[in-house]
Amino acid sequence: MSELRQDPTTREWVIIATERARRPHEFVRDKETPRNYPLRDPKCPFCPGNESETPPEVLRYSKPGTKEWQVRVVPNRFPALSPKGTVSRRTEDSLFRSMDGFGVHEVIVESPLHNVSIATMGYSDVELVLHAYRERFNALKVNPNLKYITIFKNYGETAGTSLVHPHSQLIATPVASHEAKRKRDTSAIFEDDTGSCLYCHLIHTELMMRKRIVEVTDDFVVFHPFASRSPFETWIAPILHQPSFALAPEDKIPALARVLRDTLKAIATVLKDPDYNLVLHTSPTDDEYDHYYDWHIRIIPRLTTVAGFEMGSGIYISTALPENTAAFMREQISASRRVKNAAGAQALTGA
Amino acid sequence: MSELRQDPTTREWVIIATERARRPHEFVRDKETPRNYPLRDPKCPFCPGNESETPPEVLRYSKPGTKEWQVRVVPNRFPALSPKGTVSRRTEDSLFRSMDGFGVHEVIVESPLHNVSIATMGYSDVELVLHAYRERFNALKVNPNLKYITIFKNYGETAGTSLVHPHSQLIATPVASHEAKRKRDTSAIFEDDTGSCLYCHLIHTELMMRKRIVEVTDDFVVFHPFASRSPFETWIAPILHQPSFALAPEDKIPALARVLRDTLKAIATVLKDPDYNLVLHTSPTDDEYDHYYDWHIRIIPRLTTVAGFEMGSGIYISTALPENTAAFMREQISASRRVKNAAGAQALTGA
Repeated sequence: MSELRQDPTTREWVIIATERARRPHEFVRDKETPRNYPLRDPKCPFCPGNESETPPEVLRYSKPGTKEWQVRVVPNRFPALSPKGTVSRRTEDSLFRSMDGFGVHEVIVESPLHNVSIATMGYSDVELVLHAYRERFNALKVNPNLKYITIFKNYGETAGTSLVHPHSQLIATPVASHEAKRKRDTSAIFEDDTGSCLYCHLIHTELMMRKRIVEVTDDFVVFHPFASRSPFETWIAPILHQPSFALAPEDKIPALARVLRDTLKAIATVLKDPDYNLVLHTSPTDDEYDHYYDWHIRIIPRLTTVAGFEMGSGIYISTALPENTAAFMREQISASRRVKNAAGAQALTGA
Repeated sequence: MSELRQDPTTREWVIIATERARRPHEFVRDKETPRNYPLRDPKCPFCPGNESETPPEVLRYSKPGTKEWQVRVVPNRFPALSPKGTVSRRTEDSLFRSMDGFGVHEVIVESPLHNVSIATMGYSDVELVLHAYRERFNALKVNPNLKYITIFKNYGETAGTSLVHPHSQLIATPVASHEAKRKRDTSAIFEDDTGSCLYCHLIHTELMMRKRIVEVTDDFVVFHPFASRSPFETWIAPILHQPSFALAPEDKIPALARVLRDTLKAIATVLKDPDYNLVLHTSPTDDEYDHYYDWHIRIIPRLTTVAGFEMGSGIYISTALPENTAAFMREQISASRRVKNAAGAQALTGA
């Protein structure tokens, strides 16, 4: 029978609908979306040569000794929020509260190449993207009116983007949602009750149980969470306590770049390049030094549709057990390693 | 510039992104999804003749004096939740809380005809659907373990359904989401502070302002809410205080059928038959007699995509002002009435 599971980080219940569950391989897409794009598109505002089509950049990493950029961060041309305006609230008819659309909306252009993605980029190029995330986060967090900074990536049309060129986005808002506040409160209460960080406890328990782990490196763990909202939801989290992504040790960035690239590559290979959303969850800017949070990256492949029930009830239905999807990913990854190792051994012996 | 607006019913902020806003007519789809379906499909489990393909029905309305059914309610063949099991919580490793997938999942088959929809059905047929909603709600609410009953409808593939035959669904859960609880708390606090029902106050203010109203009948108001999460989000609400849909005066059902049919028909006509989700919001089963809630129907046309920012931050971005979309709907509806009246006048004068 189906199971209701409570997400230990949000206390929201999720339905794991086993009666309508599909087996993990059934989520593999029939065919890949053709993503045959040119290396450069003259009409793309993010391609080299078209820099004037974006607002002036706020950050640029260039190849040492050249003028060629590798990563650019620019304000969004059609920003959801803008740094003009104030955060004072207005109330109309004692009921309708509003404020200026104050905030920041930036685009992180991840590569000069039009047709790559994090899954296909080199590790050092992914490192630069992560450095850009950190640098922009740290630059913006000093503004006390920006309460919450979300760094995210929409990959593919069903994930909400129409732009092919590899990019992430950053939106800094003057308010945090109640969902974010409850997440913070849940971990603060846990810390108060136990003296431990909820996320550390969660990660260590996952590592002990070994039921939902996809991959473990020296510094990071990749797993499918207990109360996944959708099939193949994937978390990447540091094994050692790190409340804020922007304050995490810089010498761990190369290791994070590897695990992020490898995780997205495994998802692309196993599930046949699905659209996905990626979100960096980190402590709110006001609580960066509080010790009840661990930053983590959440990847949500768009394999199912959120529908009326979720919208109405706030309860999500997932049609796969995370234990099964994690086992499936482990098998597929180790099978592909066996093939590679065999090929490597052949190459080494000259066979 | 953009605006942040707080939803008075949930206290969540929404971004109305005017910089990236589209004008209302730009949401009209280029072409309608072809929905050319036969009147009857021999392979459809909801078509007459195939009744044995669904579990035994829990409710049937038949044409007086015949055995032909008009509305059937059946348990879902692949239920997300089932009435077997208990609501006792289990906790694994002091962290992972779960319970049996206890609950009810039913399908309301709205018509024997395969290719109609509420937008194209006759008023009296829509009435029967609403009666079925009420009857099932009232039958299930007596079970104290069912804390929340969601009645909803997914229309079209992007709204989460693959079944063409007109149907709604009901899912009763043993838990309510924190979103639902916050909604209740918000209105309870308002009632405590003011002595009034928040929803009554909201509806009367909307009626006074006349900025976001699409339609007003003797008993109901149709409007686009102040902090719409997505363009053309539409609410249908009773003008007079009615906490619970299932307890609302039965003699208002014909009027509700009219306004629901007309609203869905207007959306289908103006926006060219978009996919949509419909959700009935009513007081939680435990609070049905509390007077701080008004039931309402929320319709969300699937015109935009929820992406990484919304998932990560819990804050929604809408790309249209509800004042503009409501005005657009009013104009389109009155234009089509003028055409109809002119045609009627011509017919009457024999011209």
